[in-house]
Amino acid sequence: MATISDVAREAQVSVATVSRVLNKQDSVKKATADRVYAAIEKLKFEPNILARNFRRSESRVILIIAPNITNPYYSHILTGIGDTANELGYSALIFNTANSEEREKEGMEMLKKRRADGAILLARNQGSQWLEEYAENYPVVQCSEYDPDVPFPHVSIDNYKAVREVMAYLFALGHERIATISSKNRYISTDLRMKAYKDALGEEGLPVEENLVAYAGLDYSFRSGKEAAEKLLAQENRPTAIFCISDTIALGAIAAAMEKGIRVPEDLTVIGFDDVEDTMMFHPYITTVGQPCYELGKNAMRMLYDRINGQLDPQHEMVLKHKFIIRESAGRRKQDD
Amino acid sequence: MATISDVAREAQVSVATVSRVLNKQDSVKKATADRVYAAIEKLKFEPNILARNFRRSESRVILIIAPNITNPYYSHILTGIGDTANELGYSALIFNTANSEEREKEGMEMLKKRRADGAILLARNQGSQWLEEYAENYPVVQCSEYDPDVPFPHVSIDNYKAVREVMAYLFALGHERIATISSKNRYISTDLRMKAYKDALGEEGLPVEENLVAYAGLDYSFRSGKEAAEKLLAQENRPTAIFCISDTIALGAIAAAMEKGIRVPEDLTVIGFDDVEDTMMFHPYITTVGQPCYELGKNAMRMLYDRINGQLDPQHEMVLKHKFIIRESAGRRKQDD
Repeated sequence: MATISDVAREAQVSVATVSRVLNKQDSVKKATADRVYAAIEKLKFEPNILARNFRRSESRVILIIAPNITNPYYSHILTGIGDTANELGYSALIFNTANSEEREKEGMEMLKKRRADGAILLARNQGSQWLEEYAENYPVVQCSEYDPDVPFPHVSIDNYKAVREVMAYLFALGHERIATISSKNRYISTDLRMKAYKDALGEEGLPVEENLVAYAGLDYSFRSGKEAAEKLLAQENRPTAIFCISDTIALGAIAAAMEKGIRVPEDLTVIGFDDVEDTMMFHPYITTVGQPCYELGKNAMRMLYDRINGQLDPQHEMVLKHKFIIRESAGRRKQDD
Repeated sequence: MATISDVAREAQVSVATVSRVLNKQDSVKKATADRVYAAIEKLKFEPNILARNFRRSESRVILIIAPNITNPYYSHILTGIGDTANELGYSALIFNTANSEEREKEGMEMLKKRRADGAILLARNQGSQWLEEYAENYPVVQCSEYDPDVPFPHVSIDNYKAVREVMAYLFALGHERIATISSKNRYISTDLRMKAYKDALGEEGLPVEENLVAYAGLDYSFRSGKEAAEKLLAQENRPTAIFCISDTIALGAIAAAMEKGIRVPEDLTVIGFDDVEDTMMFHPYITTVGQPCYELGKNAMRMLYDRINGQLDPQHEMVLKHKFIIRESAGRRKQDD
């Protein structure tokens, strides 16, 4: 491949002159510029964009830093970001951290090294002070999960409010022994959903029992949800309803119930969260909280674009509407329970 | 942030001298170099890696060009690539093309622009002559799907052999009216699986009937698999077995059967392909062909590394072993069928 030096030699000018022509600077005579263009044409030279971007300090790449893209919850968010990035002239690249903070740091280092113009954090843990050094100098947006103590803009739904609606619905159906399957992570969504679960029980005058709280894995996998539900359902005085913090976990809970001969929703109510496609694979279809995933992704990318262009406050906060979706997996508590 | 010019000004030397010091060239006097180091220290200057990489023509980034990361089939491949890239000192970034050839081209352009050192193509269609221009000059590896006419190395399983085993098993169970759910894409795996299906029927002296072949969507989604199965099962003389080219499609086929009151495997045998986690969510667990996904990813990355270092033939071909896994969704044909 031809280099800029080859072009300079061919056109009998200096490398600096070729560079000036490439940058459309006016200081080059028309005749000289024409000679450079002819040489570029002849040698099929492609200006090295990496070098041009270095000058402009722009890579036109944005990074999506994601912990675990296996969860179907992420797919529409990623599509929303990708489509919007495309419209705005950016390539969106996904950096899969596999839940490792080490790799997350490696991803952020790419901003320092100017290999990307900005980043969207898809599943920020809380309590990560190390991020603060990026806050001032680099355009970063938090999507869905966020650390409220780090000054990055974020877009999410109101997790607390959503779970209060779930709990109100369960109370209306007559449930009192309500379990939850959570996860031992540091996501704000997990904290807010747990707080809403406990506050709702408390306001209803019901105790928060330790043996009604179970935990799925960090990956919210089907298998770990199933195991957590097995523990809940093995109790003598088992719950009549389980609220799961993700649909995949809820699928696991339904599978656990089926294997024990416990019917959903006749004997057990199960409610999920997210509204992924999998909720409608097998009956009972899952009653759940729908998140506007594509819109979350789209708005995160727009916010990042504004940040890159210095037009958005770092404390900016956007809350999108969730949707409580009633399907088949929740029912009235039986009289004899 | 300090620039190289700031450092030069502070150290009272030229930018070229700072550059020589950064590149550890010997032509700079010790006293001058010390002045530059002191200025770097004082101004907290971070050498711009983008520029350094431009000189070395190395970004230490590799791209994974993927069509549709929603399919759980890709998750372990992506992890295999990511882990191996990490060990080899590379960041692996995923470029989600959402099945658009336009975006695929955009991804490949990043190689030209030196934003990445190489690329792994995860779902190459056949018949894409436009790729040939990259073959000579850029390190590219095809993983799982490949175009045999483009001189990129590739790693995959033997799709033809795998489906011949599926068919032999179905014949052994007494099935003769065997349907298949395929997809109208240009993947070599789809062609080879279809050829194996037809060859096996032919050698068994059975006709290849048009109404036994149905098509799921390009995304191999559950919903499209279910719709394809509904068509197959609506026939008067319906098949007693369905071979599906993916597990997600097979899940759809089982759901379609269940809704019609057709029992799997008692009334209908369903076989999948891939062995993703979802095959073991609900009974019947799916009989399927397991692909060594993590290993596919790992080997693709190793091959790419060798290509980057000029140590691998572009025609290199690696075939990994599949595994036929018997679970619950296939059974003997009933006598009255």
